[in-house]
Amino acid sequence: MTTHAKNDSNIWAERVLAGDRRALARVISLLENQEPEGFHTLKTLYPKTGQAHIIGLTGPPGGGKSSLVDRMIQEIRSRGHEVAVVAVDPTSPFTGGAILGDRIRMQRWASDTGVYIRSMGTRGSLGGLARAVYATVQLLDAASFPYILVETVGVGQSEVDIVQVADTVVVVSVPGLGDDVQVSKAGIMEIGDVFAVNKADLPGSQRVVVELQSMLDLGSHDVWQPPVVTTVATTGKGVSELITAIQEHLVVLQEANLLTKQRLAREKEALLQRLTERIRCDITKQWSNKQGNQAWENLAAKKTDPYTLEEQLYLSWKGVTTVDNQD
Amino acid sequence: MTTHAKNDSNIWAERVLAGDRRALARVISLLENQEPEGFHTLKTLYPKTGQAHIIGLTGPPGGGKSSLVDRMIQEIRSRGHEVAVVAVDPTSPFTGGAILGDRIRMQRWASDTGVYIRSMGTRGSLGGLARAVYATVQLLDAASFPYILVETVGVGQSEVDIVQVADTVVVVSVPGLGDDVQVSKAGIMEIGDVFAVNKADLPGSQRVVVELQSMLDLGSHDVWQPPVVTTVATTGKGVSELITAIQEHLVVLQEANLLTKQRLAREKEALLQRLTERIRCDITKQWSNKQGNQAWENLAAKKTDPYTLEEQLYLSWKGVTTVDNQD
Repeated sequence: MTTHAKNDSNIWAERVLAGDRRALARVISLLENQEPEGFHTLKTLYPKTGQAHIIGLTGPPGGGKSSLVDRMIQEIRSRGHEVAVVAVDPTSPFTGGAILGDRIRMQRWASDTGVYIRSMGTRGSLGGLARAVYATVQLLDAASFPYILVETVGVGQSEVDIVQVADTVVVVSVPGLGDDVQVSKAGIMEIGDVFAVNKADLPGSQRVVVELQSMLDLGSHDVWQPPVVTTVATTGKGVSELITAIQEHLVVLQEANLLTKQRLAREKEALLQRLTERIRCDITKQWSNKQGNQAWENLAAKKTDPYTLEEQLYLSWKGVTTVDNQD
Repeated sequence: MTTHAKNDSNIWAERVLAGDRRALARVISLLENQEPEGFHTLKTLYPKTGQAHIIGLTGPPGGGKSSLVDRMIQEIRSRGHEVAVVAVDPTSPFTGGAILGDRIRMQRWASDTGVYIRSMGTRGSLGGLARAVYATVQLLDAASFPYILVETVGVGQSEVDIVQVADTVVVVSVPGLGDDVQVSKAGIMEIGDVFAVNKADLPGSQRVVVELQSMLDLGSHDVWQPPVVTTVATTGKGVSELITAIQEHLVVLQEANLLTKQRLAREKEALLQRLTERIRCDITKQWSNKQGNQAWENLAAKKTDPYTLEEQLYLSWKGVTTVDNQD
């Protein structure tokens, strides 16, 4: 069974490397569904990764991110490069608008084999989504796309987690949404390498630029001072300058010997997250028995406290001692 | 040393139970700084918890949450109850506005010993903040506050995590901020038990009410249909109705035998999060040696892949096998 899966994985890997887009789509689905076959394929392909420039885009809904990504695809294509887009929507099943928008966009680029677009939404946990996005980006990297855009809807912590797969993070702002909603959101200023003020033909855009600049002046920037670029996605104005700024960021990272370091740090972090998630599953399983139920009952009855129980679980997991419930 | 800490903890616990507010503040600081003494105190006090009605408030910045909380304090006080407020700001050190607002509010209630207000911000990780808020709420519960309000700035995932400490979650909306920014944010509709449309004297507020209602109609609600309450925090209009709706929610939970279940589920989740965080620290420490560095170097050189390494770390942690680096 495992040998079969490995053989299949080798076939998938070969097909992905040969540029087979149907195989690519299939392996992404395997990764989304956490099938072992998907991860076997990634293992095989891992040595091929590390060539792509991974670009994350985040910003508030209504910022015109989809149109901006569309223009960025156009610009990258006009420079003669292939590009993959991962459009991530971590919002609840209550909404579905972004996915519809992606479908329209996908149709537009359907006849261009140099563009690959994939939408990903939450199927279970947000953590699961972040892991699937991470693995998908690795796969697209191995599949030789020189540019990979990861676009997320919104500015919450989940979006911050997701765009941190990127070498270069672009934070998109727009005039008129109220500044506190946009730029003072948790960690959003810190993660941006390039700031794009979209809809720059609207009144108030210069104020957003000035606000961003003054906030950026507060931060400390050793090797790279994040630029603020103005764009008008509807006309394409400023998009070439945006792509150039993004490329410059990668060059600066490379010259400062930071790119390899950052990528390794990301790899370590992703690995540790997967590992702890796995251990957590183990613990949950291990404690779904009679002894475990007794422990939770004692907690509910306040015969024990959660901190004592945590210690017991910890020691039990480490195999230091067997767990006895206190009375 | 540990015995000393335990003796000190008993003294802290006694002082907190006796209503000593300085002791309360001190133990919260111990919990914030993750000092063992804080957790020893909580262990001692744990049997006293489970009496408070814990109310979470979240919503976009600019929604007038602070003013609304102020009116809620007033209403709860006028009904003759004590109340504690935990004002959480998970945003970056770039901002500090909320904390200033809290100071002003704190001064207003400074002479009323039936009101206790505490601000908490990010000192390190967001996970650390969520844990500190959780422990603080347990402490305030043990300290006999019948109502505990946990207010967060923003609508991101971190805020969602934080308000999930609550029995009843109030989602605050306002007209004029753009509906997609407010209500279609990750998971925000799902977590609300009561929806407050604040600034209900502004034009467009009725539209927000209708939108919320229609979104709520999409969801399935077994025992409780989340109501939408309109408030005007500046005048206090609707605040009494809001408090009544919040109280009704608790009664319904109790009658459906859900309150105890929900609280135990929260306790389990918090315990598992602390435990996995701890195991993660262990693993990181264990792998900060020569062998670990070699493994990361092999990863950087792509001599191994992150999925194989994860498997090795997992087996090593479980004590199944010693870890050899592949060549």
